[in-house]
Amino acid sequence: MRLCNDMPDNKLETIAILGLGLLGGSLGLAIGRAYPQVRRVGYSHRAGTREKALETGAVEKICDSAAKAAAGADMVILASPIGTFAELMEEIAGHLPEGCLVTDVGSTKVLPVRWARQKLPRRVVFIGSHPMAGSEQRGMDFARADLFDDAHCIITPTKGTPAERVKQIKTFWQTLKMRVEEMTPAVHDRVLARISHLPHVLAAALVNSSAMQDMLLCGKGFLDTTRIASGPAGVWRDIFMANARQTDKAIERLIGQLQQWQKKLRQGDEQAIYQFLDKARLTRNELVERKLTRKELPA
Amino acid sequence: MRLCNDMPDNKLETIAILGLGLLGGSLGLAIGRAYPQVRRVGYSHRAGTREKALETGAVEKICDSAAKAAAGADMVILASPIGTFAELMEEIAGHLPEGCLVTDVGSTKVLPVRWARQKLPRRVVFIGSHPMAGSEQRGMDFARADLFDDAHCIITPTKGTPAERVKQIKTFWQTLKMRVEEMTPAVHDRVLARISHLPHVLAAALVNSSAMQDMLLCGKGFLDTTRIASGPAGVWRDIFMANARQTDKAIERLIGQLQQWQKKLRQGDEQAIYQFLDKARLTRNELVERKLTRKELPA
Repeated sequence: MRLCNDMPDNKLETIAILGLGLLGGSLGLAIGRAYPQVRRVGYSHRAGTREKALETGAVEKICDSAAKAAAGADMVILASPIGTFAELMEEIAGHLPEGCLVTDVGSTKVLPVRWARQKLPRRVVFIGSHPMAGSEQRGMDFARADLFDDAHCIITPTKGTPAERVKQIKTFWQTLKMRVEEMTPAVHDRVLARISHLPHVLAAALVNSSAMQDMLLCGKGFLDTTRIASGPAGVWRDIFMANARQTDKAIERLIGQLQQWQKKLRQGDEQAIYQFLDKARLTRNELVERKLTRKELPA
Repeated sequence: MRLCNDMPDNKLETIAILGLGLLGGSLGLAIGRAYPQVRRVGYSHRAGTREKALETGAVEKICDSAAKAAAGADMVILASPIGTFAELMEEIAGHLPEGCLVTDVGSTKVLPVRWARQKLPRRVVFIGSHPMAGSEQRGMDFARADLFDDAHCIITPTKGTPAERVKQIKTFWQTLKMRVEEMTPAVHDRVLARISHLPHVLAAALVNSSAMQDMLLCGKGFLDTTRIASGPAGVWRDIFMANARQTDKAIERLIGQLQQWQKKLRQGDEQAIYQFLDKARLTRNELVERKLTRKELPA
């Protein structure tokens, strides 16, 4: 077994982060902490963000084009909204050094992996990543070095991905204190539709089907259930467009559940209602328990 | 205008709390703080809870029957699950003193008000109350004197309720630091179906439509969206059975929203998806802003 020091990411000299919002900014800070010897180069299309990224130390060098930032990097991380990925890949394609490892932090994986296959040259390797950290907050002002600590990161190598490159990206996220899981892009998108994109649809639909006058009377439960609906609309639109089919299916499953509720309510079947409630209660408690055991939640 | 000291609740000598779970226990502690001169008598069908209620000072006297607790009280508060109300009312009916004010803390109001009309004698006055405080926690162990502070309490007097009694119950909850709103039982149940019972259905349905293996990868968003699904199944079954029709309607409205999402996702209509998301975001932000302004949320 090779020691950690022998891992290929020890060769890392320069990492380029394209996009410096909450995720990109936090990534810069986290890399600075975990890889103090690695040079961090950043790109943002906003001048204000570029200045702030230098000021806060999220990156050490800033560029006003993605191509310039990517040129000379051993590793390039796409951290802008998914909707910009295809264009960004085209822009950097001709500038990426031989052997460069390209990844992203997008919330869906089928499309980014497909775009990479279409747009990036064969001299580089693309592996999709989805570090599952963030909040409903937005922008570099909320960036934190510990945003990724103990959170899950799903990587989605494909058949052709060289094993040592899978190891490299895995080690990278683990060094940023993440728990890395591996799955295919298709499985990733199906799972995420269920545990992330569907909850967002529900939160937004719940707010949109309520009147302000009624909501003003609401308690903590309603606010918690809808918290994620405060997330940035543009970022989430991109996610939904990139995972429309799986989100549609997840909504369909949920509607099926809701129709079961309606049926049992109309029948006055209190045993069935009790079972729905108790199953959900026990399942969620088990989930929380298991996450506590794995130290994924504060005790 | 009469001063607060002249309010009829100044005549209060004894309050009986029937049911000593999270709400009943907290009520005892809150009344002890707000009305130190008033005698608090409690009833629970569980011997362990009866002991604990005395130990923690939630009540000063404990009875092993609801009738005994209610006898001699100026005010009686039903704080057990709604499903027990009808029986409880029958049990105390013959023991309530002339002029006693009876209320409850149930989460639906049409049925409790109807049961009171059917079961309670004309010498007492019933006004439904819904103090909207609580959590997914359960039982007297979680009781807190400040559970009701700054939360909303909806009271549901009816046409025949004497105005001075409406004033009395209003003053009572306000003295417990609650924000009192008045509405009919029917309006209450419709509003609550939308802002409380529907979110609970969504939380439970979301958990029940997910696989544990997938949920183990979830982030804070999923946990927040489903938090209320950890609430006690028996209490919530009672709520749903008592508000089946309005909950059914609220689910129907929500399904309509979800079908709109499906339609737009299938059409690839990114503008519509953006509008759903941005409307929800802005609306929720306005809600949070307004609740902050009214100091209903910690700043």
